[in-house]
Amino acid sequence: MRAAKYIGGGRVEVGEADAQAPAAGEVSIRVAFNGICGTDLHIVQGHMDARVDMPATIGHEMSGVIEAVGDGVDLAVGAPVTVMPLRWCGSCAACAAGHQHICQRLDFVGIDSPGALQELWTVPASIVVPLPEGLSLQHAALVEPLAVAVHDVRRSRLATGETAVVIGGGPIGQLIAVVARATGATVILAEPDAARRDFAAQQGAIVVDPIEGDLAAVVEERTAGAGADVVFEVAGTRGTALDATRHARTRGRVVFVAIHPEPVPVDLHRIFWRELEVLGARVYEREDFERAIELLAAGQVPADALITRVVPLDATMEAFEALLSAAAMKILVDVQGVGA
Amino acid sequence: MRAAKYIGGGRVEVGEADAQAPAAGEVSIRVAFNGICGTDLHIVQGHMDARVDMPATIGHEMSGVIEAVGDGVDLAVGAPVTVMPLRWCGSCAACAAGHQHICQRLDFVGIDSPGALQELWTVPASIVVPLPEGLSLQHAALVEPLAVAVHDVRRSRLATGETAVVIGGGPIGQLIAVVARATGATVILAEPDAARRDFAAQQGAIVVDPIEGDLAAVVEERTAGAGADVVFEVAGTRGTALDATRHARTRGRVVFVAIHPEPVPVDLHRIFWRELEVLGARVYEREDFERAIELLAAGQVPADALITRVVPLDATMEAFEALLSAAAMKILVDVQGVGA
Repeated sequence: MRAAKYIGGGRVEVGEADAQAPAAGEVSIRVAFNGICGTDLHIVQGHMDARVDMPATIGHEMSGVIEAVGDGVDLAVGAPVTVMPLRWCGSCAACAAGHQHICQRLDFVGIDSPGALQELWTVPASIVVPLPEGLSLQHAALVEPLAVAVHDVRRSRLATGETAVVIGGGPIGQLIAVVARATGATVILAEPDAARRDFAAQQGAIVVDPIEGDLAAVVEERTAGAGADVVFEVAGTRGTALDATRHARTRGRVVFVAIHPEPVPVDLHRIFWRELEVLGARVYEREDFERAIELLAAGQVPADALITRVVPLDATMEAFEALLSAAAMKILVDVQGVGA
Repeated sequence: MRAAKYIGGGRVEVGEADAQAPAAGEVSIRVAFNGICGTDLHIVQGHMDARVDMPATIGHEMSGVIEAVGDGVDLAVGAPVTVMPLRWCGSCAACAAGHQHICQRLDFVGIDSPGALQELWTVPASIVVPLPEGLSLQHAALVEPLAVAVHDVRRSRLATGETAVVIGGGPIGQLIAVVARATGATVILAEPDAARRDFAAQQGAIVVDPIEGDLAAVVEERTAGAGADVVFEVAGTRGTALDATRHARTRGRVVFVAIHPEPVPVDLHRIFWRELEVLGARVYEREDFERAIELLAAGQVPADALITRVVPLDATMEAFEALLSAAAMKILVDVQGVGA
């Protein structure tokens, strides 16, 4: 079979690899589609070389069909599935407290262990999530990033009738806006890129250009001076981290979704003054995966519009280059595809 | 009657002032004791000159006895009372949401309007809080700062059997430790001053010198590697703000109690990685006042040990000087006292 591997030096190479037969408790999946995410970009740019074991088969936003199962697995060959790419230790303090998804020894499959950019992928049956009939495998490749957004929104306790500010209109920001709208909230999305603003506006968000416009004034006006119930910081800049707390009402919630590898200045005085609640949110739990599948199956997610392009496995490196050079939303790799 | 007034330039002057008879709905209180708090120090140091209206009668940690009541007031002359020094507008978005204590137009009595460092103090009956028989008026002057600690602990949702880290052993840090212990939690208090560490240790806290010792190692050891359920940052330095998030378990809560006037670096990656919850906490609500009174009346607060010194009204300026130059815990002004 073929697999795409990150070999260091900014390069991804596609070549032959050995398929691994499923052992007891394992499933072999014929991978259909794999989306490329921001973390994959970080890996290929070399930012995570200390963590990944090269050559590394990465990829964790996927869909596929069960090819074979090992002993003791109660899943049917031929069934469409996705994978929740988390393996926890089961014994650390986080696991003991019921927070397995943020296990202190978490194995993020596709980063810490081999991922889905290979024709046949063998994983524990426990992390396989069945897909419903009628959900296309292309759309199902969005389950994982959508589950991130579902988790972020769930952590925020956003409720029907509330107002959410989403700072940043990249793929995760757009998905958070979609989930927030599906929750019955009013969404104000701030994004400097006009095409991304248009995308959000088509999904029913009020959009603001934070450079030319005045996000604070829009939030004030739309909330009668109260501020937003929830703010999602998804842009990941120092400026937006500092600004995020400004837009929340008294006792409002602020979710820092974007990853800030280094400490950045935060307005602790505003957190004190308005008794804000700042929430960290990381990956997802099984119920977030289930909810993401439901939303996609119900057609509540603009999946076709989010998928900018689909490329065959051989063109994986081109997909990375395209994402690094342009504001594409989501590029899928057609793992079984052989290209033009 | 006599009153102590902040007149600017670092000076407090004691002199004659006119007593104000209580109008309808008002109460005149013969002030017994008034504690001096960190905010009063900021005022006298000139840090809040833009906010206070000089000459300013400050003071908001008090106890006293009702001297006279205006029409329509259902409180008895002679009754011992304290005051919850918050006046809200009742109509802003915060008030409408039920968060009157952090009203967007809050009048903090003793800062934004005249306070308790005067022999007779007239206030609205709505902010007067009756005291139980048997609670001494000296101890009752601690109700207000204790209510701050009660509010901080309540915001943290600290529960019996949990572990709390308190960073900073000044008056509020000590009171938080006392309330946390009364809640049934294990307390680890970090404080560089040996006398303050001894004070906390006598109240049952595990104490750590954060300069010579290793707070992280102690927290690790005491929580079997999990981290603390709650961390209170009460020291107010850049270093402690950055460090606070390090000691919390997955999904742990971090309360930034100390005031950081300017944005400071915060470890957003740790908040993300462990899905922490950061909570702002400001002043108190009526139930916090009631709980503070209960704790003092039940003898669960080392009130005598906390009161370093009592000085007569004429010596108010000396009290400020003593607090600025030494690590006194709490100095009370005996407002009716005439000095030696």
